[in-house]
Amino acid sequence: MSAPKETARKTANRPEARLPKGFVDMAGDDLRALNRMLATIREVYELYGYEPLDTPAFEYTDALGKFLPDQDRPNAGVFSLQDEDEQWLSLRYDLTAPLARYVAENINRLARPYRRYAVGPVWRNEKPGPGRFRQFIQCDADTVGTDNVAADAEACLLMADVIRRLGIEEFRIRLNNRKVLDGLLETVGIDPQSETDAARRLTVLRAMDKFDKFGTEGVALLLGKGRRDESGDFTQGAELPTAAIDTIVRFLDASSGAAIGGESLVRRVAPLVEASARARDGLEEISRIEALVRATGATGDLIAFDPSVVRGLDYYTGPVFEAELTFEVTNEDGLPVRFGSVGGGGRYDDLVARFTGERVPATGFSLGISRLQAALKIRETAATAPLGPVLVLVMDKAEIAGYQAIAQELRAAGIRAEMYLGTSGMKAQMKYADRRNAPCVIIEGSDERAKGEIQIKDLIEGAKAAQAIKDNAEWKAARPAQVSAPRGGLVEAVREIVARHGG
Amino acid sequence: MSAPKETARKTANRPEARLPKGFVDMAGDDLRALNRMLATIREVYELYGYEPLDTPAFEYTDALGKFLPDQDRPNAGVFSLQDEDEQWLSLRYDLTAPLARYVAENINRLARPYRRYAVGPVWRNEKPGPGRFRQFIQCDADTVGTDNVAADAEACLLMADVIRRLGIEEFRIRLNNRKVLDGLLETVGIDPQSETDAARRLTVLRAMDKFDKFGTEGVALLLGKGRRDESGDFTQGAELPTAAIDTIVRFLDASSGAAIGGESLVRRVAPLVEASARARDGLEEISRIEALVRATGATGDLIAFDPSVVRGLDYYTGPVFEAELTFEVTNEDGLPVRFGSVGGGGRYDDLVARFTGERVPATGFSLGISRLQAALKIRETAATAPLGPVLVLVMDKAEIAGYQAIAQELRAAGIRAEMYLGTSGMKAQMKYADRRNAPCVIIEGSDERAKGEIQIKDLIEGAKAAQAIKDNAEWKAARPAQVSAPRGGLVEAVREIVARHGG
Repeated sequence: MSAPKETARKTANRPEARLPKGFVDMAGDDLRALNRMLATIREVYELYGYEPLDTPAFEYTDALGKFLPDQDRPNAGVFSLQDEDEQWLSLRYDLTAPLARYVAENINRLARPYRRYAVGPVWRNEKPGPGRFRQFIQCDADTVGTDNVAADAEACLLMADVIRRLGIEEFRIRLNNRKVLDGLLETVGIDPQSETDAARRLTVLRAMDKFDKFGTEGVALLLGKGRRDESGDFTQGAELPTAAIDTIVRFLDASSGAAIGGESLVRRVAPLVEASARARDGLEEISRIEALVRATGATGDLIAFDPSVVRGLDYYTGPVFEAELTFEVTNEDGLPVRFGSVGGGGRYDDLVARFTGERVPATGFSLGISRLQAALKIRETAATAPLGPVLVLVMDKAEIAGYQAIAQELRAAGIRAEMYLGTSGMKAQMKYADRRNAPCVIIEGSDERAKGEIQIKDLIEGAKAAQAIKDNAEWKAARPAQVSAPRGGLVEAVREIVARHGG
Repeated sequence: MSAPKETARKTANRPEARLPKGFVDMAGDDLRALNRMLATIREVYELYGYEPLDTPAFEYTDALGKFLPDQDRPNAGVFSLQDEDEQWLSLRYDLTAPLARYVAENINRLARPYRRYAVGPVWRNEKPGPGRFRQFIQCDADTVGTDNVAADAEACLLMADVIRRLGIEEFRIRLNNRKVLDGLLETVGIDPQSETDAARRLTVLRAMDKFDKFGTEGVALLLGKGRRDESGDFTQGAELPTAAIDTIVRFLDASSGAAIGGESLVRRVAPLVEASARARDGLEEISRIEALVRATGATGDLIAFDPSVVRGLDYYTGPVFEAELTFEVTNEDGLPVRFGSVGGGGRYDDLVARFTGERVPATGFSLGISRLQAALKIRETAATAPLGPVLVLVMDKAEIAGYQAIAQELRAAGIRAEMYLGTSGMKAQMKYADRRNAPCVIIEGSDERAKGEIQIKDLIEGAKAAQAIKDNAEWKAARPAQVSAPRGGLVEAVREIVARHGG
C-alpha cells in the first residue's frame, strides 16, 4: 500500500511548470527576427558614432531614482530587494537612469559630448495586461554634455534612419518642446513651476495627449467639466475657464487645415503663446531643428512640429519627439487606426545633477522593441516559414559515426545541418524533418554506401509533387524530388537544393 | 544665510553614483568585442541546427529549483523577492533550470529531440570577489529528449567548433562519465546512492577535482587524513583506507605515462573499476563518444577521456565534459599556469521529470563568456585601438546645418561619422577627435565653402608626421596629412583614408 501513497506525495510536491504573469518566453524564428532587428539598430547607432554601454540589471535604489511615467504611488513600479548589508537594490526600469549614474560616476573619463547607445531588458513591477509585460527590451541612444540643439536634431534623424533601415517607410517624427507647452500653460494661468498647480498641470497635459484619440471636442471636455466615454465611465476634467480651453484647443488644432510641417505651423502657433518668453524660446528651437533636418535632405513632413505631442515623462526640459508609424491597422473593435508610437524621447537637463550638483545637459530617445517587432510582422510580405537545417537520416544505428561525419562536413561548408538524434524509425524521422522545416534530408543506406553514393530528398519539391501524384505505386516508381549524388559531391548537391529554396 | 544651508542640505541628500558590489558596466570596444563574440557563438550554434530560446530573468522560485554548484546553504545563491500575490520569484542563476521549465511546459509542441541554445545574463547572489561577479553571461547549447550518446558527442564537437571559430587553437575537450566515477566510488566502498555516504562522496569528488592543481600527492592527502597548504590552512580529508586511496590515485594517474586519448586509456582504467557494471557502462559510452568524434576527422587528443574531470554540479548522470584552454598564462604568484576551463557540461536526465514525472533525457553545456573574453584578449595579436568615427568639425556655428549634412552623407555611405556637438573651439574639437580615435576630421571653413571644397586631415598620418617634423613653422607650411577634395568628392576621399587605416 505504501508505493501509491509515495507516488501521490511525490506528485503533490512537483512544481508546476509555468511562468510568472507578465513574463514571456521567446523562441525560434520570432527570436531570430528580434536578434536581426537589434543587430540592424546597433549598426545604425554605430554609424552615427554612438558608443555602446551595457549596465547591469541592478542599481542601488537611491541611485536609480523614480522617473517612471504615470507613476502616482512612490516605490511602486520597480522590483526591489535588500542586499546583505541591508541596502536596497532595484532592477532598472529604463536605460536612462543607469546612464545618468554611469555618467556621474565616470564624468572625468568620458570624451564629451558623450554619445552612447544601450540595448537591453528593463523591468516594471506593474499589473500585467494584454501587451503589457513586466520585462521588455529598450534600445536607447543619448547624447550627454551639450546644450546644442543640433543634438536634438540628430536624435530625430537617427530615430528616422533606424525605422527606415528596418524596412518601414510610412512614419513620421513628431516634434514639440516642453518650453512651448509650459509657456502655453503660463498663458492660460497655470504656473508650470508651482507645486500647487502641479496636479492641474498634469491633468491638462494628459488631456492634450489625448488629442489624437478624442479630437478637439473630447479634449475640450477633458479641459473643462470632464468627459464620459461610450462605456459610461467619467473622467474628471481640469475645470479650466472657457477662454483657457479655447486657447489650448486652438493650439492643438493649429496643424489642421494647412499643410503640416515647415515654418508656417510655428508661425501660426506663435501668436497663441507670444506672452511667454519661454514659449518663444521653445518655438525658436523647433524652427532650428526643422532647419537642420531639412539641410540633410529630409522632406519637411518627415520630422516636423506637432503641437499635440506631450510625452509622459516629467523630467523633459526642452525638445520632445515621438516616432509614429502612420500605416493603418485594425484595432480590437475592428476599426482602422494608425499603428501609432514606437518610441520617442527628448531633452532632459537635470538627471546627472541629481548626483553631482553639476548641470549636465542631455537628450536622447528610446525605441519600444516589441512595438517595432509587431509593426515589422504586419509589414512583412509573403510570410514564408524560414528554412530549417538539413537533416541527416539515421538509416542504420551502427553507422551513426558516418552520419555525424556527413552533418559535420555540411556545417564546415556553412550549411546548417543536424543528424537525427532520436531513436525512432524512418517515419518518425521524416515527420521530424517536416516539423523542423528541413529543406532536404540526406539518405545513406547500405546500398548507397556500397556504391559510394548518397540520396538527397528535396522536401519542398517533394511536397509539391505529392499534391500532383495521387497514386502510391506511381509515387514509389517516380521517387519525385529525390536525387543521387556521389558521396564526394555531398556539399555541392545540398548547397544547390538549399539555394533553390532561398536558404 | 539661508542659501548655503539649503545647498548643504541638498548635497547631503544627493545619492552617490556607484554600482552595487559584484556588478560591472561594460562599454566601448570591450562591449563591441563581446557582441562580436556572442554573434560568432550564435552563428555556430545555428549551424548545428540549434533553436534559439530566450526565457525571462524571473522564474517562480519553486520552478527554478536549487541546482547551484557548491551551494551548501539552501536558499542562498539566488536573488529572490515576493510577488504581489506573495509567491516567491527568483532571478535565474543559470540557463538550464529555465530550459527544464520551458520543456516541461511545452513538451507536446516541441519537435523532439529538441536542440536549443540560449545566450543571456544569469545572476548569483554570492559574495563578490576578484573575477567573481553577481551577473554574468552564459551561452548554453542543449539537446533534450534523447538518450543517444551521439548527442553527447555532438556537444563536444560543438564546444570545440565554437572555440576554434573564436580564433583559439590551443584547447582540448576533456571527457569523463559520472557512471565511471560512481563505479569507482562503489569499488572503494562508498555507495553513490546512499544518503549516509553523501558527504564523503562529495569530499572524494572534490579531492579528485583538485588533481590538476595538487597532483597525486595532494589528492592522496585530501583522500586520507587531510592536507595543509602553504599558508598553513588545513583541509579535512575523506579518511579513506589506504587501499581505496591507492585505487583512486591510480585511476586519476592513468593518463600519465602513455599518450593521452584513444582506446588505450579506457582500457588502462578498466581493470580498476571492472567490479562495477555501472562503470563498465560508462567506459563504453566514453569509447563510443571518442569513436564518433574520430569519425568526423577530429584528432584523437582534441576530445578525449580524462579521468580527473568531475564537474561541480550534482545533477549529471552520464558523460561530463570540460573545455580547457591549454596555453599558458601567468598566475597571481607570477608562475606559468594553463589558462584552464572556459566551460563544460554533461548529461542530466532528471531535470524535466521534476515537473512532469516523466523522464526526459538531456545533455548540453555552458560556456563562460567572461573567461572566453579574457582568453581572447590575451591571444589577440597587435592590440591596435579600433578606429572611431570620422569627426566633422564645426568651424562656424552658423553653418551647422551644412556640417550635419556632411555627417549624414558619410553615414548614408556606410561610414561611421559624427558632427562635433559641443560648443568649444578648434583646439578642444581636435582633442575630442583624438580621444575618440577618429581616423580623420572634415574641415569646411568659409574659404573652403567659397571654393566648393573640403579639407580632410588624416589624424593617424598626422601623428606620424608630427614625430618627424619638430619645427612649428615647417609644420604649418607642410600641413602634413591634410588633403583638399571637391565637396562632391567627400565620400570617396574619406573612404580612401578610412580604408588606408584598416577601417
